[in-house]
Amino acid sequence: MNYEKIISSVYQQLSEQNNYGNVAAYIPELAKVNGAKFGVFLQPVNEIGFGVGDYNEKFSIQSIAKVPLLALAFQLLGDNIWTRIGYEPSGTSFNSIVQLELERGIPRNPLINAGAIVLCDILIDCLNNPLDDFLDFIREIAANKTIAYNEKIAKSEEKTGYKNYAIISLMKSFGNIHNDIDKVLNFYFHICSIEMTCRELASTFLFMANKGIVPDTKTQILNSSQTKRINAIMQTCGFYDEAGEFAFKVGLPGKSGVGGGIVAIYPSKYAVAVWSPRLNSKGNSYKGLLFLEELTTKTAASIF
Amino acid sequence: MNYEKIISSVYQQLSEQNNYGNVAAYIPELAKVNGAKFGVFLQPVNEIGFGVGDYNEKFSIQSIAKVPLLALAFQLLGDNIWTRIGYEPSGTSFNSIVQLELERGIPRNPLINAGAIVLCDILIDCLNNPLDDFLDFIREIAANKTIAYNEKIAKSEEKTGYKNYAIISLMKSFGNIHNDIDKVLNFYFHICSIEMTCRELASTFLFMANKGIVPDTKTQILNSSQTKRINAIMQTCGFYDEAGEFAFKVGLPGKSGVGGGIVAIYPSKYAVAVWSPRLNSKGNSYKGLLFLEELTTKTAASIF
Amino acid sequence: MNYEKIISSVYQQLSEQNNYGNVAAYIPELAKVNGAKFGVFLQPVNEIGFGVGDYNEKFSIQSIAKVPLLALAFQLLGDNIWTRIGYEPSGTSFNSIVQLELERGIPRNPLINAGAIVLCDILIDCLNNPLDDFLDFIREIAANKTIAYNEKIAKSEEKTGYKNYAIISLMKSFGNIHNDIDKVLNFYFHICSIEMTCRELASTFLFMANKGIVPDTKTQILNSSQTKRINAIMQTCGFYDEAGEFAFKVGLPGKSGVGGGIVAIYPSKYAVAVWSPRLNSKGNSYKGLLFLEELTTKTAASIF
Amino acid sequence: MNYEKIISSVYQQLSEQNNYGNVAAYIPELAKVNGAKFGVFLQPVNEIGFGVGDYNEKFSIQSIAKVPLLALAFQLLGDNIWTRIGYEPSGTSFNSIVQLELERGIPRNPLINAGAIVLCDILIDCLNNPLDDFLDFIREIAANKTIAYNEKIAKSEEKTGYKNYAIISLMKSFGNIHNDIDKVLNFYFHICSIEMTCRELASTFLFMANKGIVPDTKTQILNSSQTKRINAIMQTCGFYDEAGEFAFKVGLPGKSGVGGGIVAIYPSKYAVAVWSPRLNSKGNSYKGLLFLEELTTKTAASIF
Repeated sequence: MNYEKIISSVYQQLSEQNNYGNVAAYIPELAKVNGAKFGVFLQPVNEIGFGVGDYNEKFSIQSIAKVPLLALAFQLLGDNIWTRIGYEPSGTSFNSIVQLELERGIPRNPLINAGAIVLCDILIDCLNNPLDDFLDFIREIAANKTIAYNEKIAKSEEKTGYKNYAIISLMKSFGNIHNDIDKVLNFYFHICSIEMTCRELASTFLFMANKGIVPDTKTQILNSSQTKRINAIMQTCGFYDEAGEFAFKVGLPGKSGVGGGIVAIYPSKYAVAVWSPRLNSKGNSYKGLLFLEELTTKTAASIF
Repeated sequence: MNYEKIISSVYQQLSEQNNYGNVAAYIPELAKVNGAKFGVFLQPVNEIGFGVGDYNEKFSIQSIAKVPLLALAFQLLGDNIWTRIGYEPSGTSFNSIVQLELERGIPRNPLINAGAIVLCDILIDCLNNPLDDFLDFIREIAANKTIAYNEKIAKSEEKTGYKNYAIISLMKSFGNIHNDIDKVLNFYFHICSIEMTCRELASTFLFMANKGIVPDTKTQILNSSQTKRINAIMQTCGFYDEAGEFAFKVGLPGKSGVGGGIVAIYPSKYAVAVWSPRLNSKGNSYKGLLFLEELTTKTAASIF
Repeated sequence: MNYEKIISSVYQQLSEQNNYGNVAAYIPELAKVNGAKFGVFLQPVNEIGFGVGDYNEKFSIQSIAKVPLLALAFQLLGDNIWTRIGYEPSGTSFNSIVQLELERGIPRNPLINAGAIVLCDILIDCLNNPLDDFLDFIREIAANKTIAYNEKIAKSEEKTGYKNYAIISLMKSFGNIHNDIDKVLNFYFHICSIEMTCRELASTFLFMANKGIVPDTKTQILNSSQTKRINAIMQTCGFYDEAGEFAFKVGLPGKSGVGGGIVAIYPSKYAVAVWSPRLNSKGNSYKGLLFLEELTTKTAASIF
Repeated sequence: MNYEKIISSVYQQLSEQNNYGNVAAYIPELAKVNGAKFGVFLQPVNEIGFGVGDYNEKFSIQSIAKVPLLALAFQLLGDNIWTRIGYEPSGTSFNSIVQLELERGIPRNPLINAGAIVLCDILIDCLNNPLDDFLDFIREIAANKTIAYNEKIAKSEEKTGYKNYAIISLMKSFGNIHNDIDKVLNFYFHICSIEMTCRELASTFLFMANKGIVPDTKTQILNSSQTKRINAIMQTCGFYDEAGEFAFKVGLPGKSGVGGGIVAIYPSKYAVAVWSPRLNSKGNSYKGLLFLEELTTKTAASIF
């Protein structure tokens, strides 16, 4: 399959189309991003990758970081994590807190805020130096020592993220947060502040297309059953209340972030990252979704 | 891959384990089924299939029939159906009616009762003879002219299915049902009453593993994009509020019914049907789920 | 207190103000009513009553009939009715069916549709001739033999009241409806179709201001404890999700109907009925509420 | 009416009955209270009051303090407070946070935690010294300079009240909290920590039975319309999801606290306070409710 040609042609086609939606504004630092940015990078498992547009520019990966977070927790604690967190889709968007109250503080899955915050709480209990250790982990799977937090973004969220304070306080009232609220959220906001280029993002997720092994270094991060399970969770829960839409139109496991990034995995084949900061009403990159839909249609590539 | 050997060994192993859960009791006719029944049949795309146990015994496929129903509506009307029905997972179980009220009569997806009932309403408007035409369709995809409704089961549901009357009345109050309530439910209850053996069920779903083409007859039922989309919907919505669990543990698109049947699809490879009438608390076959989990683990076969 | 003068002056004042809202349109027969109608009648316990405007014109009392329905069931069965129905406010409007599903078919109170429908089901089991017997009862408390059902309105609701079919079907699925759905709803729709003038309506409710005794005939309908309890239910539940507003602004127990009528009770003092068909967004008479607010402000009359 | 005799006899009768429920345990300081305590005090508007049992013993009034809080805010800001808070009953108990999310941070009424927290935020903006000023106000209405906060209880809640942190954070995310979260909650927890005896509590609420005027000092706290409105809110919202039950059985406006206290108002007649720390499943004093039900039955005293 000539991915390079297909990607270039889809990129070209979408560049000429109107863009819609708004850049995420609730975090002041994110609101400054140029909405016209557009980059893609496809990294096959055992070939040279290929990118178009702004694929070498850093952006805030935000919620996409929940997947490496889950990978690290799963690696360290195995199935024990599932006593404090589920793996079912959350259904509608408005109910992040509704569900948490009805389900007594147990988040539906690790890819909604509540779930990732519980993972942070879990990791704080088993890492010596959570912030450093997580960065080491993500650099290991990215095979790239330059990946870093953006302190400005982390601080910006810390000052305005009241919804996350509500979520963690409610979980703590149910006993599902063991550490100090500010400490857990500080960790969480840092994780979300990580910056990558499309190229780095595709590389970071490549082990998820390769049975849990980082192709460059041959490091086994997860076993193949764990890898398959995280991919399954991305498929059913990776896009909030648009998970069905992504499965329907794209047909690959993936994860989006409010920074405008999306990453998708074709098991055994490739990881692909796309970045376009303007978001649709569900908070997912407008052009990013279109790009991946076209890509899988044109390549007739889907897991289904 | 020697499916025959793996299937036999998993079947053997599970036969020796305790069984749990109860046979569906809310439909009097279903309550009579022998809970100890257990059959499986795996049908590869281009090879001879293989079964173990009670795989040649008929059972009520119930909700599994929602997938052929969706296939027929999708074939006849294409993407027009999505104005009256969504394709997002429904989240929690208790909210079938809750969601329907909040979302003003538009069902979340075609694999919950509300969604399948809307499909029945849609098909009544475009088929000359809905009951006959649907039976013709399912016989065509099954490549089997003996598939039939069970009138006793259909009547039994008609007399006791008050929840479905509630669902359809609510949708009608929002204008999303165009035909007479009793007519639509009569069609719906008949569809759910269809009986098949595991062997027939696996054959019926084989076109979903073959890009929409019935292998035996080469008939194109759906195009490959439509096929992929229905598989995606099965993956995210096929098991009510256990869809995440099935994706996590089995990793294949599938659909269950309260008759104790489950069918799963491995695109390009096979369709597999299992039947064991005792249900877990979420209404899915207890041993059926275990069997499919073991099967995909032992064969290392999953789409993820 | 010179009620006559106060009523006349408030009526005058409101007649000159703009009217807002729409006449109920979901029942075709009700949609034909002239939205400019406006009548009031205040009936003291032991004095001559006084009315202004269209107080001698019949209108459909609709949900107001739920109070006599409750009075009859309470008279015949006492506290036994509370096993199948609650007496708590329902909270928000949108959740009529939501709550019913969460609370497994037990309506929150007798003054929402679900609750009144359960009362109909209860009465069918203990009356020989429900339709005639209820009419006899309402004529007895009204001390007026001309009160009657409006068959046209009843039929009109029967054909379009899908939400009520949804509600009753859901309750039947939980076992809280014992009789045939169509029979119960036929009774319910008839009760809602009763027509009265403001004068008749005030007279009908006067026993609720008189410890359960019809002043004209000295007939004891309820004992004083039962009377107090129904008044309490009207106070907390009589205006759907505007019950707090009515208590806050008017400060009397009362009940409204989508026909534009409202009745309020000042225990030991009077019953007052007002009719103005244009409804606010919560389904209560726009001018009716303003009238009662002004009346209780001007008379400094409130139970609080 | 010989209140003294009735109160003594009801007290006697209930003292001999079994007690049920548990002392509130979620605040460590409250859990230490002796569950066998039982005191009542009835204070008529213009007569000498009368008490039985432990009526001279201090207890934590907790949520009962929300009513003086509302009185002060209403006095200072009038109807302006209703832009940030409603006056409708909240319906079910489990939805404190559910409703807050659906209704975008506007609490249903001032007598649930969310509503009282918004009042604290409002008062911080218009008082020089919120803690001192509120204490002055409550001492004024109580005509008693010894009323005080319990610092230990306030601190105890500050350390464990995660649900309240969740509530205030969610409201802040919707923009309905203007001040620093910790500052607002510090004020709120202090208000809830106020201690009174039954005698003091009945005196404190006596102005609510006297058109807003403190009988002892003739100070006008609220005008009669405001007084009536707060009484109406107590009637419809004073007992969480047991408001209907209290109206039905007791028939007076009132407010309960998890310290086991309840106060009820009979406008123009009296204020009555009862204290018994063991709570029913809805969080209201088990014997307190029984006492008030018997009292209003025996005295045939109810507003309805």
